[in-house]
Amino acid sequence: MAKKRSAPGRSGLSIRVDLRSGLRIGPGKVALLEAIGQTGSISGAGRALGMSYKRAWDLVEELNRGCESPVVTASPGGRDGGGTSLTATGDALVRLYREIETASAAAARPHMRALTRMAAPINS
Amino acid sequence: MAKKRSAPGRSGLSIRVDLRSGLRIGPGKVALLEAIGQTGSISGAGRALGMSYKRAWDLVEELNRGCESPVVTASPGGRDGGGTSLTATGDALVRLYREIETASAAAARPHMRALTRMAAPINS
Repeated sequence: MAKKRSAPGRSGLSIRVDLRSGLRIGPGKVALLEAIGQTGSISGAGRALGMSYKRAWDLVEELNRGCESPVVTASPGGRDGGGTSLTATGDALVRLYREIETASAAAARPHMRALTRMAAPINS
Repeated sequence: MAKKRSAPGRSGLSIRVDLRSGLRIGPGKVALLEAIGQTGSISGAGRALGMSYKRAWDLVEELNRGCESPVVTASPGGRDGGGTSLTATGDALVRLYREIETASAAAARPHMRALTRMAAPINS
């Protein structure tokens, strides 16, 4: 999902939020949380995003450390090794980031149009 | 200038603009253009930002290629090797980026407040 925004041929904003705790939240971490919510596992989310298992875990750990409470919770494993889901904190983080993104894009639209006119034609 | 935004202890947005030409404009390139405007040279701007000469030139080249016309112009060198200044395109790019940043920050403020409350205390 993060990749779509930076694909050539599209114009748009990419937003990174820096929090006082030092935590940085950008399109990659938010896409990972959304994929965890959808797949019910960190490894499944990593696969869906073409991200290594270690990379996915590292990002989740970074989010857990940077937030006042963890962003994901694991349910005890049964035959399938349990599942992972977003906590209320994880849910709120995704929602707030997407709201920031939407509000920013709307506010920036007239300036973006002007900036887009200054760009060289594609493949120039 | 770009560094201030990502320093620990501050919260805020960092914005990257992706243009259809493939050009990406973020705080680093914009700070470089501003420093060129202030110092009158690419090397001086690089020094002011703690950036190597090569890195500064590469970023300027990237901007020149990605815009419909160059962002800087060199005046023929005299004893001091001439000077470099921003073109109208360079000026407009800086202005529009800063407008996008300001508009986005204002639009995102209420959501940022909520997100900031979720962050872990500093140094946790």
